[in-house]
Amino acid sequence: MTPSPALSADADVRSALIERFRTVRERTEALAAPLSEADQTVQTIADVSPTKWHRAHITWFFEQFLLLPHEPGFEWFHPNYAYLFNSYYDAVGERHPRPERGFVTRPSAAEIGTYRAAVDERVVALLESIADPSSLTTLIELGTHHEEQHQELLLMDAKHVVSGNVVDDAYVRESHVAAADPGPLQWLEFAGNIVDIGVADTANFHFDNEGPFHQALLRPFRLADRLVTAGEWLEFIADDGYDRPELWLSDGWYKSRGEGWRAPLYWRDEGDHWSVHTLTGRRPVDPHEPVVHVSFYEADAYATWAGVRLPTEFEWEAAVNTTIAESSDGAAVAAGIDRDIAWHPPGAATETTSLRQVFDTAWQWTESAYRPYPGYRPPEGAIGEYNGKFMANQHVLRGGSAFTPPGHARLTYRNFFHLHTRWHLSGVRLATDA
Amino acid sequence: MTPSPALSADADVRSALIERFRTVRERTEALAAPLSEADQTVQTIADVSPTKWHRAHITWFFEQFLLLPHEPGFEWFHPNYAYLFNSYYDAVGERHPRPERGFVTRPSAAEIGTYRAAVDERVVALLESIADPSSLTTLIELGTHHEEQHQELLLMDAKHVVSGNVVDDAYVRESHVAAADPGPLQWLEFAGNIVDIGVADTANFHFDNEGPFHQALLRPFRLADRLVTAGEWLEFIADDGYDRPELWLSDGWYKSRGEGWRAPLYWRDEGDHWSVHTLTGRRPVDPHEPVVHVSFYEADAYATWAGVRLPTEFEWEAAVNTTIAESSDGAAVAAGIDRDIAWHPPGAATETTSLRQVFDTAWQWTESAYRPYPGYRPPEGAIGEYNGKFMANQHVLRGGSAFTPPGHARLTYRNFFHLHTRWHLSGVRLATDA
Amino acid sequence: MTPSPALSADADVRSALIERFRTVRERTEALAAPLSEADQTVQTIADVSPTKWHRAHITWFFEQFLLLPHEPGFEWFHPNYAYLFNSYYDAVGERHPRPERGFVTRPSAAEIGTYRAAVDERVVALLESIADPSSLTTLIELGTHHEEQHQELLLMDAKHVVSGNVVDDAYVRESHVAAADPGPLQWLEFAGNIVDIGVADTANFHFDNEGPFHQALLRPFRLADRLVTAGEWLEFIADDGYDRPELWLSDGWYKSRGEGWRAPLYWRDEGDHWSVHTLTGRRPVDPHEPVVHVSFYEADAYATWAGVRLPTEFEWEAAVNTTIAESSDGAAVAAGIDRDIAWHPPGAATETTSLRQVFDTAWQWTESAYRPYPGYRPPEGAIGEYNGKFMANQHVLRGGSAFTPPGHARLTYRNFFHLHTRWHLSGVRLATDA
Amino acid sequence: MTPSPALSADADVRSALIERFRTVRERTEALAAPLSEADQTVQTIADVSPTKWHRAHITWFFEQFLLLPHEPGFEWFHPNYAYLFNSYYDAVGERHPRPERGFVTRPSAAEIGTYRAAVDERVVALLESIADPSSLTTLIELGTHHEEQHQELLLMDAKHVVSGNVVDDAYVRESHVAAADPGPLQWLEFAGNIVDIGVADTANFHFDNEGPFHQALLRPFRLADRLVTAGEWLEFIADDGYDRPELWLSDGWYKSRGEGWRAPLYWRDEGDHWSVHTLTGRRPVDPHEPVVHVSFYEADAYATWAGVRLPTEFEWEAAVNTTIAESSDGAAVAAGIDRDIAWHPPGAATETTSLRQVFDTAWQWTESAYRPYPGYRPPEGAIGEYNGKFMANQHVLRGGSAFTPPGHARLTYRNFFHLHTRWHLSGVRLATDA
Repeated sequence: MTPSPALSADADVRSALIERFRTVRERTEALAAPLSEADQTVQTIADVSPTKWHRAHITWFFEQFLLLPHEPGFEWFHPNYAYLFNSYYDAVGERHPRPERGFVTRPSAAEIGTYRAAVDERVVALLESIADPSSLTTLIELGTHHEEQHQELLLMDAKHVVSGNVVDDAYVRESHVAAADPGPLQWLEFAGNIVDIGVADTANFHFDNEGPFHQALLRPFRLADRLVTAGEWLEFIADDGYDRPELWLSDGWYKSRGEGWRAPLYWRDEGDHWSVHTLTGRRPVDPHEPVVHVSFYEADAYATWAGVRLPTEFEWEAAVNTTIAESSDGAAVAAGIDRDIAWHPPGAATETTSLRQVFDTAWQWTESAYRPYPGYRPPEGAIGEYNGKFMANQHVLRGGSAFTPPGHARLTYRNFFHLHTRWHLSGVRLATDA
Repeated sequence: MTPSPALSADADVRSALIERFRTVRERTEALAAPLSEADQTVQTIADVSPTKWHRAHITWFFEQFLLLPHEPGFEWFHPNYAYLFNSYYDAVGERHPRPERGFVTRPSAAEIGTYRAAVDERVVALLESIADPSSLTTLIELGTHHEEQHQELLLMDAKHVVSGNVVDDAYVRESHVAAADPGPLQWLEFAGNIVDIGVADTANFHFDNEGPFHQALLRPFRLADRLVTAGEWLEFIADDGYDRPELWLSDGWYKSRGEGWRAPLYWRDEGDHWSVHTLTGRRPVDPHEPVVHVSFYEADAYATWAGVRLPTEFEWEAAVNTTIAESSDGAAVAAGIDRDIAWHPPGAATETTSLRQVFDTAWQWTESAYRPYPGYRPPEGAIGEYNGKFMANQHVLRGGSAFTPPGHARLTYRNFFHLHTRWHLSGVRLATDA
Repeated sequence: MTPSPALSADADVRSALIERFRTVRERTEALAAPLSEADQTVQTIADVSPTKWHRAHITWFFEQFLLLPHEPGFEWFHPNYAYLFNSYYDAVGERHPRPERGFVTRPSAAEIGTYRAAVDERVVALLESIADPSSLTTLIELGTHHEEQHQELLLMDAKHVVSGNVVDDAYVRESHVAAADPGPLQWLEFAGNIVDIGVADTANFHFDNEGPFHQALLRPFRLADRLVTAGEWLEFIADDGYDRPELWLSDGWYKSRGEGWRAPLYWRDEGDHWSVHTLTGRRPVDPHEPVVHVSFYEADAYATWAGVRLPTEFEWEAAVNTTIAESSDGAAVAAGIDRDIAWHPPGAATETTSLRQVFDTAWQWTESAYRPYPGYRPPEGAIGEYNGKFMANQHVLRGGSAFTPPGHARLTYRNFFHLHTRWHLSGVRLATDA
Repeated sequence: MTPSPALSADADVRSALIERFRTVRERTEALAAPLSEADQTVQTIADVSPTKWHRAHITWFFEQFLLLPHEPGFEWFHPNYAYLFNSYYDAVGERHPRPERGFVTRPSAAEIGTYRAAVDERVVALLESIADPSSLTTLIELGTHHEEQHQELLLMDAKHVVSGNVVDDAYVRESHVAAADPGPLQWLEFAGNIVDIGVADTANFHFDNEGPFHQALLRPFRLADRLVTAGEWLEFIADDGYDRPELWLSDGWYKSRGEGWRAPLYWRDEGDHWSVHTLTGRRPVDPHEPVVHVSFYEADAYATWAGVRLPTEFEWEAAVNTTIAESSDGAAVAAGIDRDIAWHPPGAATETTSLRQVFDTAWQWTESAYRPYPGYRPPEGAIGEYNGKFMANQHVLRGGSAFTPPGHARLTYRNFFHLHTRWHLSGVRLATDA
């Protein structure tokens, strides 16, 4: 007997959701595997969360938003975990203070592994048993994309945690392969236009802040084909870039002086050269690698020094959109984000189209303050706290980074950080008026 | 003998510049007159500058940027004043730390009066003697508009300084006339369009941040005809507006809780009613007056609570532009900023056109982060520090306030403040999608 | 053949030193054993050090001060450990910042175990091989007493670290046995006198701050036979003790208000009763147990409330000295500190003499600021930093606590803490003029 | 008819009290006279109070503690002054926050003059009319001595306020007369003894902290005949005294590094010499003048560097007591505090006895923490807050300074400051064991 098309489709959805869920969940555990119990527990700055906390939080997210409303006979895995592992959702109750995440010595990393396994089992059981699996598609997609975001945070945060250790500061051991010379920066030219911005086809997964789809008016502009390199940044330093207030936004100047910035985060002056801390430990700065771990203030000052500017997020999106469309090999861009290790060395971009280092190297600061698109409304309920409430005092970054999970980045994706933070994999793509 | 047209024109320019200069300079002294030596010396928060400092700083501005390059045989009035009264121009040398402005007990207010008189005399002498007075037009206009900005700051700051005094907190003594009932809020509707933004006719004075002239793409929207009233704000308070995190931007929520905000700045809970500190001292809140002294965070939370939003600065500019153009009585809007006292009570707007309380009541927070217009470049030299370096972490306010000097506000004017500050005369005009 | 007396004595010294060293070193590991890798890594406040750090620091102390000068062919176990595990000895080089001790995820707790074993082996080898073992007596005694001090700190600190955990806050699991009713407080009376203070027989081990031996002039006084109980402290709370400024030293009042103190550290208001966090987890406050974890400010306010005062350290020493001397059972006092568990519940004092709870219950705040005795000079070299440089802004505590290792406390011992700290096992013995 | 002896005595008491009251009150106004309204209003650091505040506070003290309980038909001069000008008396009600004293622009300095005159008149009227004037002796004495303390504070504070002014930093204009070379430091030797400490004859005015009279046991010691000079301090600086942690108490070392201390307060490195700010403005450091404006930490570090120590307050009192007693010219010491200007240049001591610079040059830091004498109890009521509640975290200074009013200092006087403060006229007298 042939199954009805509906059932067959259901079966496909069911297995696809389970496959998606399992893949993402396993990748998190693989990323955490090199880290010891101590590495997973510590919080070095308030921005950083412990690995252990990430692993638990993204599990709680499934428990809170998927199992609680959908699992028959739901019970909390542990009475305190919702309190401990809620990140910032005011609507679902009290939560543990963020700056004290590094004081949570119990549960242990192993106990969080047990928690993860238990929730995994229950989610899969629910997906296997539910009559209409497609009713959970949205939540599985949100939960897995949420977990992918935390995979990148986990790497950023772990990099910071291990960086302070004087006896061993590597996340994994691996040799640095010298970055290829990216060649002189090329300017790609784009005409003025009314362009489409944001998610048009809302059937595919996206975050709420990527819409509503709308139009923006652009003037002619040029965009750099690649990111600024460490070698170019050394010229900025040599030209007293960190000591010239006329290059800096006022808030940035005071921050920079207050913190004593002389170079990107993780760079250290070794007398005759600069070294840099990476996931594989400290090594000399490679002039051909893209500069990363710079704040918006530094990116902006660099652009001013170079006599140009940063792109707006609309210019960036329109340019990348156009470039893909015009490319004979659109797949190549996709390939750029299809690599198997998260700590892929910056600089090894694989795109063959004219715009390089778009999705897999470093997030690119934009000129655009992070604000809602026209007509934006946060979703109802706790999920409405996902993005909207952070739309103040931050700038948008576009693209993706070597830490971004494969398949996670996309054209309309809007990442965002405060203007002074530097522990993320952020780089600089320059723009200028045409 | 008839003067040649050129000479005649020169004479007109000369007398017009002298008249303009004298008018503005005298107004500053009139505004400072009600304040004692002590009132003029103290700095209650870092944002506030002493009256005495304002009076000296705007005088130094003429000395530094007008006399130094143009006066034959220039000598500094006092060897330390450039150090003491430079506000933030890094390019012209070291300066006194802002948080210590309130520690400057010498020179006295009277000595600063002497300084002002001496510079006035020299500027007027220069204007009278220079062969081509129009060569100084730009600097006189910049200097006088700069002084007008400080006139508003002087009132804001003096209001804050006297507010802390328990024995007498009035700047001037004057009775409060009950505000007229502004009636129910009306929504004015505007079509989507590509609109002109910024200064087109650059011959008229404007600040650099008002250009370049460019186009923006607007979607249909509605704009409130008047500002939110104190009475409406009381409803927000009564509905727990200050206690509901879902209404607030995250940064705003933490700021509000940290500072213990329960109402706008200067409001005080008197048990059975709210009182408010004004330039004429403390009195009961008047429900018909516009709410003022609210931060961007509060304005945004209020709009969210009301189910609408704040306008973008482009919507605001386009709407005001259209309204004036369509109005049969464009002069009425101009009249709105043509009043003879700076401390004109909020609420007494005189516009008769459909958009009310535009320029003379309270600055209106916009949805727009303060960022440069496309193609913006700061001017060369120290004057380049005037606006550009502050384009981060602030939002644009449009319009003008009861503290804005007559004739100072205009359609394209961009005021800006950090999202948390409240000591300025800021109010709320609502918008919504059409 | 009979060994010569000299050799025999050497053999005795040798085995005694090895025995002493091994006993102390093993006890540290036993105290750390209940704590996980995460528990041993975290630093909850700047005062607290991680267990792992304590274990390493006291090992480095032997490496630095014993092995480095005495071991033939000495080599550092690890090139970075002297930097990481130096606590505060400026004379021996740069050191890791104290507030970042909780960021050291590497070496692991197990690696520190290896470090300890290696140093233990080398110290024992040195003791076995050195011609004149008695030349190391002073250093072995200093090192082992130093380690005993850190054993108490380790327990205090671990108690604080685990206290923040909502899912499990116990160091070990053990049931609370209700404290016996200590009965009404009895006043013991002491005559005025010139009394001996400090270490007279310098042959026995003591810290430098216990001498020089000298005389002090005392007036007649009375001393409480036991510590203030939790039940008595509840009366102080009920009588608004924490809300009456007239009871408090001014610095204490501001500290208390600033920190929101309503009860001793670790107490929590459960609505109808108070609970307290202990090494065995949280349980109801037992009215018969001595109050512990109070600051000097609280102890002083309590004494003022009770109409009496705290003893001076000289009164305390003279009274305890006399009591032991007069007692028919001096051994009983010694027995009080001879118990086999460090986390012995407060309140289970075993002395049978007139002064109770002297050495084994809680350190007793004294009226005396921590200052050098007449003629005190710190030793030369790094060891001189052991005590002298802390003689400012602290008060002396006398006695010992349930956390003090057996045999560590003694009559002349001077413990000291800042007036506001509370994470130590400090209690209150009252005094009054006779 | 001859008045009865009792009446006659009353008349003497009456006129003596009025004379005493008027003399002290007038001296305060004389000290404030050189200061402008602005100078009298500003508060540069939390430790400093505005001159205007001092003038009002000491007036309120008479209103609160003398007039309120004794004046028939008492009414407050102004309903807010008790709130504004209460310094720290919790028992008499709420008060204005100390760090905001510099924000009080109203009342003006002139209005405070009016307040002072009104209270003066009422106090004198009360003294003239009361049947038994001697019943007010205690309060008049307390109030006038309290005012004298504030006269010294007023000078200390005014010196700090004017010090920040770049255009004129003098309190009064006066030339510096080079200090005479005090010659090599001489050590005076004192035998060990049981000595009397504190006020024995309680009939004379004294503060509560100077008693109870009691005995202390001293060991033989030596005391320097004069204070450490600026020239000697320059040697300490040249020998890296501010850069050698082994010389410093730990708390002092961190404070010094945190604040960047390189020399006493008010000293400035002018490249080829050091200058110092004084009441008469800035001038070169004079090597023969005593060093002043040093913290306890610096005084202690200097003494350690010099291989000696600071005296205890008991040594100081016993030595001064002995020296006066042995002197054939005890009056000379008294003469030392009988000078006619408060801002008498340090270094011009006039004693002819062996101990020099005792009462009229600079307060002398002692080794002794500020703690109550045996048997000390604060008085009942608000006056009990005068001294007792500050007996924590401070050290005693003995003697008096060039800023101390004539007749105010005495043998048993105990001044006190926190260990890190420097804005007082504090110097260093060395001691050592004999």
